Amino acid sequence: MPHAANTKQVDLNSDMGEAFGAYRMGDDEAILTHVTSANVACGFHGGDAEVMAATFASAREKGVAVGAHPGYADLWGFGRRVIPHTLGEIERLVAYQVGAAQALATYAGHRITYVKAHGALGNLTEADEDVARAVTNAVKAVDPSLICLSIAFSHQERIARDQGMVVKTEIFADRGYTEDGRLVPRKQPGAMIHDPEAAAARVVRMVRDGAVETLSGKSLPTPIDSICLHSDTPTAVLIARRVRVALEEAGVSVKAFA
Amino acid sequence: MPHAANTKQVDLNSDMGEAFGAYRMGDDEAILTHVTSANVACGFHGGDAEVMAATFASAREKGVAVGAHPGYADLWGFGRRVIPHTLGEIERLVAYQVGAAQALATYAGHRITYVKAHGALGNLTEADEDVARAVTNAVKAVDPSLICLSIAFSHQERIARDQGMVVKTEIFADRGYTEDGRLVPRKQPGAMIHDPEAAAARVVRMVRDGAVETLSGKSLPTPIDSICLHSDTPTAVLIARRVRVALEEAGVSVKAFA
Amino acid sequence: MPHAANTKQVDLNSDMGEAFGAYRMGDDEAILTHVTSANVACGFHGGDAEVMAATFASAREKGVAVGAHPGYADLWGFGRRVIPHTLGEIERLVAYQVGAAQALATYAGHRITYVKAHGALGNLTEADEDVARAVTNAVKAVDPSLICLSIAFSHQERIARDQGMVVKTEIFADRGYTEDGRLVPRKQPGAMIHDPEAAAARVVRMVRDGAVETLSGKSLPTPIDSICLHSDTPTAVLIARRVRVALEEAGVSVKAFA
Amino acid sequence: MPHAANTKQVDLNSDMGEAFGAYRMGDDEAILTHVTSANVACGFHGGDAEVMAATFASAREKGVAVGAHPGYADLWGFGRRVIPHTLGEIERLVAYQVGAAQALATYAGHRITYVKAHGALGNLTEADEDVARAVTNAVKAVDPSLICLSIAFSHQERIARDQGMVVKTEIFADRGYTEDGRLVPRKQPGAMIHDPEAAAARVVRMVRDGAVETLSGKSLPTPIDSICLHSDTPTAVLIARRVRVALEEAGVSVKAFA
Repeated sequence: MPHAANTKQVDLNSDMGEAFGAYRMGDDEAILTHVTSANVACGFHGGDAEVMAATFASAREKGVAVGAHPGYADLWGFGRRVIPHTLGEIERLVAYQVGAAQALATYAGHRITYVKAHGALGNLTEADEDVARAVTNAVKAVDPSLICLSIAFSHQERIARDQGMVVKTEIFADRGYTEDGRLVPRKQPGAMIHDPEAAAARVVRMVRDGAVETLSGKSLPTPIDSICLHSDTPTAVLIARRVRVALEEAGVSVKAFA
Repeated sequence: MPHAANTKQVDLNSDMGEAFGAYRMGDDEAILTHVTSANVACGFHGGDAEVMAATFASAREKGVAVGAHPGYADLWGFGRRVIPHTLGEIERLVAYQVGAAQALATYAGHRITYVKAHGALGNLTEADEDVARAVTNAVKAVDPSLICLSIAFSHQERIARDQGMVVKTEIFADRGYTEDGRLVPRKQPGAMIHDPEAAAARVVRMVRDGAVETLSGKSLPTPIDSICLHSDTPTAVLIARRVRVALEEAGVSVKAFA
Repeated sequence: MPHAANTKQVDLNSDMGEAFGAYRMGDDEAILTHVTSANVACGFHGGDAEVMAATFASAREKGVAVGAHPGYADLWGFGRRVIPHTLGEIERLVAYQVGAAQALATYAGHRITYVKAHGALGNLTEADEDVARAVTNAVKAVDPSLICLSIAFSHQERIARDQGMVVKTEIFADRGYTEDGRLVPRKQPGAMIHDPEAAAARVVRMVRDGAVETLSGKSLPTPIDSICLHSDTPTAVLIARRVRVALEEAGVSVKAFA
Repeated sequence: MPHAANTKQVDLNSDMGEAFGAYRMGDDEAILTHVTSANVACGFHGGDAEVMAATFASAREKGVAVGAHPGYADLWGFGRRVIPHTLGEIERLVAYQVGAAQALATYAGHRITYVKAHGALGNLTEADEDVARAVTNAVKAVDPSLICLSIAFSHQERIARDQGMVVKTEIFADRGYTEDGRLVPRKQPGAMIHDPEAAAARVVRMVRDGAVETLSGKSLPTPIDSICLHSDTPTAVLIARRVRVALEEAGVSVKAFA
């Protein structure tokens, strides 16, 4: 029974603070009532100083932990495109965003406790060893006490641990897993679980078993410190609430990892 | 004999790190050999994560202190236009930039010790009490140990001091002063001193006397902790070198205030 | 009986195409079924090449006329802030945006027939003679056959007419008017009419009478070629539909002016 | 003797108008005295409405033809990075920029006669058939009378011709060619010819022979309507002058192709 400790407590994280100026994105206030950690955009792929400060203040009021959520400088593409960068450039753009988030969290009376890379950059921390190392280097250089929130089975999970960083591992509530623990690409069958009940039941099973379920039904043991919930889909609030209730009904304590 | 202590030591500060991507601005490497404090742009009116990190690293090597130099989010206008903002928005945009600068300075093995507002925002900290307070609020909220580098006779100098912040006062090497200690607007006669020798001799007099010279030749006593040197004019390097040499020849110790 | 000709036909215009990348703004498809002219954002204060082309294509399918809707280069402020510019700079930023809109309209099989300035820039074409002239100069220089859609009683209405441009005059469905025909500032009482029925009845009266109603109930005669409907308020679609139905029930032909 | 007609006359083109706000790039005024066609940046990878209008006005005064020079929306990367786009998105971003350039050229009393893609986008029009077609589609949709200035042996040269567009073919004064007529990648030996004399003599030979010279010395026959000169290297002005003089001394008429 691997990772039994993890079955007793789990965090729910979601992307937040992605509005920009007059443009809204997602229903942050509603999501914030269900999650325990908010990954706050840092103004490069979404978000701005106003949204960041307001999100930090709201999270503080609701007792939700906050992390910096750096992405590529690609507002138009919402951080979902791989913008060509050297590894050194990735280090600097992550460091910049983490610092900005720390300052605005402090300004709002809160504190950044972790970092999670966003979108295309986040995906590369799963699949590309060099990018995973660059992101980890940046976080460590800025503040080695920050936790790296990493995708299960990702390069970053291993690298950050090897570098002596505290790592927390996340799985996705509504994403399918390949047989080797990678996320099924979005355009392939089984990539997404759309039904809130199915997603919730699956999350409970995975947390209880300390393992992700692959498309074929195989179990891949992993630490599960957090469940990533989407915030920008039509059913985001519904799924968030349903997952939380299901976990609590199953006796799992839902609370922030930091 | 007012402010005698100040006549023995003075800092030379200059704006730095204002390049952006493929675009150059000023000869930072040359200026860095003459100044003792570098005000580093934070990516809003100029600068980017690459330039910031490189400037911090270079300043560290040369023993030059570094400050965050936040400005309006106005790359096109280089921070020289007053972009309409609420006071709260000014607080957040300053906090954001200070945090980004702190993180990249740390990344580069250096440390931000002060904050100086840039361009149109900086001018308002002289003349507009509310903006001066907003900028000061932001710095204090992010890190109350940061020094406010303020224009002599400015609202910010007074407000930051009233708020218990450490304030250092700067005068300009090449700008004329009105009879009440304000900077002569750039379009008026006497606004700029172009001759390096004249500028250097005037700086020595002002530092020695602990007072700025007005257009009419009157002396206005003030603390003088730092001399601001321009970095983006054709004669910038020449003036910087000349001012430094003249100060040292006059027995003034040229070193960073922090 | 002033401007009797205008009482027989009127255009309904609304701002469109203000989304940006992943960010939505308003329900353009719904609004497009009610209006006869779409003012399409040109990528500076909102909109992008994707949204512009899609909006032009949709307008073409629905038989809706399209105009360029240039604004300040202020995505964050959505074009609602007065960004400092010289008059020459205003000419160039309008010319740029008009050209971009013309090209993408052509690309989408449609054609720009008019120009209307957006937001803070649009407000200045009402109240600031120099800005009104700069916008008009730009439109005339790029294509003198373009129509200037101008606010009733505005400087631009008069200047564009004096310059030999074709001018169409618009009034607002849901904005109060001062005694001298200016829009009541948004923060003052009476600035907005929120009730769809009241707005619709008032529009019918104003079109029938060829005059705007001031806050005190006075009638100010004016050509009324078009009614401006908002697109980004919660009740936008409702008001648009109600105004159109009311006009048609009153025997007014609702069609594009070009 | 292939393409004899081309040996009698040739155009010199160079990238221009790449400044942005307070940031300078290259010595446009000097280059404009040597070239016959100016590829003017359109505000996405460089340039802005001010620079565009000023460049068009200066080119008109000097009798230099002007083309739109669209690139990726990547000011930071100066258009040199391949930013992920769908083919449709490429069509729209090219159409947008061409229209903006046409309007500002008209505003400045000049006229866009051709389009040449910039940087990473331009490189793809050489090597990627789909991108070449997307760029060509955009130009044709906006204005089928515009000339496509295409790299010798590129996909775009063939595709634009197949689509009935007027195509002009360019070679590079200072770039090496592979044995199949592609540009030697910048990081490989022989990619760049740095010596002005060597570059000038080689250009004269290539124009005279109607063929590019490969690294191994082989001749590859091609139409040569224009020579591309760089504008942003330290020796740019020197090479431009030297190439022009050498061509004229060799009896080649240096004039715009349109």
